[in-house]
Amino acid sequence: MSLDAVLARIDEDQPAALERLFALLRIPSISTDPAYKPDCAAAADWLVADLETLGFTAKAHATPGHPMVVAQGGEGGPHLLFYGHYDVQPVDPLEFWSRDPFDPELQETPKGRVIRARGASDDKGQLMTFLEALRAWKAMHGRLPCRLTILLEGEEESGSPSLIPFLKQHAVDLKADIALICDTGLFQDTAPAIVTMLRGLLGEEVVIRAANKDLHSGMFGGLARNPIHVLSRILSGLHDDLGTVQVPGFYEGVTELPDEIRAQWQNLAFDHAKFLGDVGLSLPAGEADRTPLEMIWSRPTAEVNGISGGYAGDGFKTVLPGEARAKISFRLVGSQDPEKLRESFRAWVKAQIPADCSVSFADHGASPAGVMQITHPAFEAARAALAAEWGRPAAYVGCGGSIPIAGYFKTYLGMDAMLLGFGRDDDQIHSPNEKYDLECFHKGIRSWARLLGSLA
Amino acid sequence: MSLDAVLARIDEDQPAALERLFALLRIPSISTDPAYKPDCAAAADWLVADLETLGFTAKAHATPGHPMVVAQGGEGGPHLLFYGHYDVQPVDPLEFWSRDPFDPELQETPKGRVIRARGASDDKGQLMTFLEALRAWKAMHGRLPCRLTILLEGEEESGSPSLIPFLKQHAVDLKADIALICDTGLFQDTAPAIVTMLRGLLGEEVVIRAANKDLHSGMFGGLARNPIHVLSRILSGLHDDLGTVQVPGFYEGVTELPDEIRAQWQNLAFDHAKFLGDVGLSLPAGEADRTPLEMIWSRPTAEVNGISGGYAGDGFKTVLPGEARAKISFRLVGSQDPEKLRESFRAWVKAQIPADCSVSFADHGASPAGVMQITHPAFEAARAALAAEWGRPAAYVGCGGSIPIAGYFKTYLGMDAMLLGFGRDDDQIHSPNEKYDLECFHKGIRSWARLLGSLA
Repeated sequence: MSLDAVLARIDEDQPAALERLFALLRIPSISTDPAYKPDCAAAADWLVADLETLGFTAKAHATPGHPMVVAQGGEGGPHLLFYGHYDVQPVDPLEFWSRDPFDPELQETPKGRVIRARGASDDKGQLMTFLEALRAWKAMHGRLPCRLTILLEGEEESGSPSLIPFLKQHAVDLKADIALICDTGLFQDTAPAIVTMLRGLLGEEVVIRAANKDLHSGMFGGLARNPIHVLSRILSGLHDDLGTVQVPGFYEGVTELPDEIRAQWQNLAFDHAKFLGDVGLSLPAGEADRTPLEMIWSRPTAEVNGISGGYAGDGFKTVLPGEARAKISFRLVGSQDPEKLRESFRAWVKAQIPADCSVSFADHGASPAGVMQITHPAFEAARAALAAEWGRPAAYVGCGGSIPIAGYFKTYLGMDAMLLGFGRDDDQIHSPNEKYDLECFHKGIRSWARLLGSLA
Repeated sequence: MSLDAVLARIDEDQPAALERLFALLRIPSISTDPAYKPDCAAAADWLVADLETLGFTAKAHATPGHPMVVAQGGEGGPHLLFYGHYDVQPVDPLEFWSRDPFDPELQETPKGRVIRARGASDDKGQLMTFLEALRAWKAMHGRLPCRLTILLEGEEESGSPSLIPFLKQHAVDLKADIALICDTGLFQDTAPAIVTMLRGLLGEEVVIRAANKDLHSGMFGGLARNPIHVLSRILSGLHDDLGTVQVPGFYEGVTELPDEIRAQWQNLAFDHAKFLGDVGLSLPAGEADRTPLEMIWSRPTAEVNGISGGYAGDGFKTVLPGEARAKISFRLVGSQDPEKLRESFRAWVKAQIPADCSVSFADHGASPAGVMQITHPAFEAARAALAAEWGRPAAYVGCGGSIPIAGYFKTYLGMDAMLLGFGRDDDQIHSPNEKYDLECFHKGIRSWARLLGSLA
């Protein structure tokens, strides 16, 4: 049976596929709010039932939080694990929604037809692209394309508290040749993309103390140490004039972009003027010798996320504060070691503290960067499948934010992951009026069918 | 009649002087609270009546706020204007007072007898030292020592809104050869001091804006301009490594200390280790080549009084903020021009703003330094009188904080002022359990008598 037949089946079945997605979207599976615990269980049960119609052996595993859906099925070929999540974000503020967030509807918009509902894009619509591809495959071939494990989480929007214990406990069942994670998007709305670099994160808080209380600047100003001055000096030295981070050893483990990836990124023709223009900026502000895409995907950063000290309310107080504090995050790439960097950062700060001041630190988390091994044949197969479906070259891209699941698969299951998805930047995930473009849903299903055809 | 007789009269009359002060302290003349408006008027009336017993022509002049007491009397010799204020600070938190703040009492303490009441030191006790000195003088001489104008304000603790219009309107009546202001204290509790330098103040707020909203540091970090970084760089450049302020033209109008004053200050043997040690510090942190007393009295400063930007609450948010702000105050000396400095500061900041950012400023006030002309013979007479009474040399000192009245006398009446007083650092003015040492009240009266004897 040819791929064309599977694709044709997907096209024919689109109204029914939409009905199935709507049924799932109608279940208000908000994981962070205990009031919706039965709804999370209902969504898990709905997925178990649907997976069983595809020939899977499926089960909603109880956890201390919401159930974890695991399904096993198919045989032969590579063993693929597919990951998605069935829980959704809360819907507040409800008054900003144009309709009930859990009453999905297909709407006409100037940019095309959209599926409007909470979870339409993040992540119910995305996870159903994979299930619908399997459904069409099974309809045409009478079986699943290869050995498959499906893992659908119900706590992704509430910090995944049960995930790591579950991965550890079920490692034998869950370990596959590669994981497919469908929770990302297209590049600038049109170009298919596979995320192969996820930046890590190190969070630090610095508190500098001088006098044991706030002082009057008239009485003490000019004589007593001002901790805001000390902090400003340290923060101003985080980067040199070219944007290079000055913490000793910071760039250890940072590797240059492979030529092939660099070429792909050049082809992406990233419109950084629009990207920055949308938020009122126009000029790249980071490392002087790096392209904008490198800055947000493949280069490490040091950013002050918050600063406070002294009087910051209305009006004016001539206070000379006793302390000043800053929250600083480092985005990490390559094999930068977060714990080693934390030590280096703290030593660097301490060396700049005047004799009369003290400094303390708070640890706000550390996770290494995720760098996918793109040697598995699934990567090139996926690039080809995506390019064929979307009519544009697919690129290996980076992701500035953190998607911890890929790192967990690597750490706890020793398995690489491939992240690809079909969301668009204007999907309003986590916001009112979330939507998923019908085109993304439809072509997403077809993309998976092409990839499965190539891998099976 | 000899000075000794006047001093003896003061000693004899002390119980009665204390009773008169207690009567004034019993009037709860809190100027900032409208509920106490009748009490402010009552305090003014009490003073008018008392001044009339001394032979003054006295009147409580109505203002839009609280009355201004003006009295004229005496003849010959220099024309002296005496300034004090009869209003007091609020008493909250009342539960921290050991007794009713408006039920004055003489209390024994390990450090000697104190007058305990709101206003005992600031400023009813202090202003009564002058009136009691006049009373003893009149008792012995039958007349006032010289031509005198008394100006007693009722709004000093609430921003003096009526003062400048009143000075303008009554300039002819109020202008004297010199003003005597009794609202300051002894130096380190024991050494008599005349304040001849009051630092001025320039208040500025700087707001730096980059993106038009807070950004996600995962998505934009490394590419988008971080306004906290921009602000830190600017603030870190306020001083060089030696503590010298870097704003162009900052030191214009700053003069070196006259040798004579420098010698007096050296004799003061300021215990900066104790001064700093009391607030948990030990090392002077200002200009490397200046003494601690210079730093707080005669040198200009630039201090950041508050800074804010991004997320400063509990935990951590990887926000890349759209704006950052700082409140900065400059203490001014000599003839530094606040408005010129404001312009220079703003230009200096603007020159450091990257193309993609904007900056705005808020004006939080400007007042020039007060530098007393110590050429008037009253200054040396006062030094001698104070030294004779306190048994220690009296010094011309600076005051880091701002006492605007001296500047107003200069600006609106063309009259120099001499600030001397007998408060101690532990008087708890503006706080619960305010007190005035009986020794300060008694020796304060005697100090004025000596000075009047010298000037009359």
